[in-house]
Amino acid sequence: MEKNCVFCKIIAGEIPSAKVYEDEKVLAFLDIAPFNFGHTLVIPKEHCHCFTAIPADTLAAMMSAAQRLAIAVMRATGAPAYNLLMNNGQVAGQEVPHAHLHIIPRFVDDPVSFRAPQKHYEGNAIAEFAAKIQERLARQSAQ
Amino acid sequence: MEKNCVFCKIIAGEIPSAKVYEDEKVLAFLDIAPFNFGHTLVIPKEHCHCFTAIPADTLAAMMSAAQRLAIAVMRATGAPAYNLLMNNGQVAGQEVPHAHLHIIPRFVDDPVSFRAPQKHYEGNAIAEFAAKIQERLARQSAQ
Repeated sequence: MEKNCVFCKIIAGEIPSAKVYEDEKVLAFLDIAPFNFGHTLVIPKEHCHCFTAIPADTLAAMMSAAQRLAIAVMRATGAPAYNLLMNNGQVAGQEVPHAHLHIIPRFVDDPVSFRAPQKHYEGNAIAEFAAKIQERLARQSAQ
Repeated sequence: MEKNCVFCKIIAGEIPSAKVYEDEKVLAFLDIAPFNFGHTLVIPKEHCHCFTAIPADTLAAMMSAAQRLAIAVMRATGAPAYNLLMNNGQVAGQEVPHAHLHIIPRFVDDPVSFRAPQKHYEGNAIAEFAAKIQERLARQSAQ
């Protein structure tokens, strides 16, 4: 448990939440400021500040829970579709520094939008970006 | 392989892509219409139309690859943060009906936004939504 972490306090029961699911490694509860009603957050019980800090077994448990929850959220809300979203880092909109996966039920013509202006790779730029990412992956594997 | 699926054709090498990672179960390549340069898509090689259709072992492999890729994308692009996004269903903005996880590098003051107008639960509504979702989960477990 991380001192001053709102989600750790929710896990510990020090702050109330509208819990929808719990197991040994995972907790899920409703976002109190939802994009649509039924908007659910899935979090690791272990304090991990972001996605890459989540241990493999905990991440597998989160994703398995998220699969079941996505179906339950759709059935409970009547939503025909949903987004999974995880913001990592303040610049990406992460407001609580404890990793959390949003399950956002979506409805026809709702005011939610996850679109953005698209950029265009010029000339060989896409191959150059791919090569850079491959190079970084190779360095990580070598570590 | 699903006939007429663009991503299955990319996996089969029938359509070219800027590949950044590949293993037995997973392929990752650059989105050709990125929100920011380095925007990467992680897909299961097996054709799964959405998140809940992905088998557990394939999903674990995707997420493990995504953890390594998120770090590599940040290092290669210099991004301080990133979003993970998976749109499930047309109403949620899913354009290719083969599950794909977006890794979107984010920069200070970039034009990308994943915010939306927030709703407010009135009275006991949040507890009622939580109960409905719990009930659906219980029914799924009983099946």
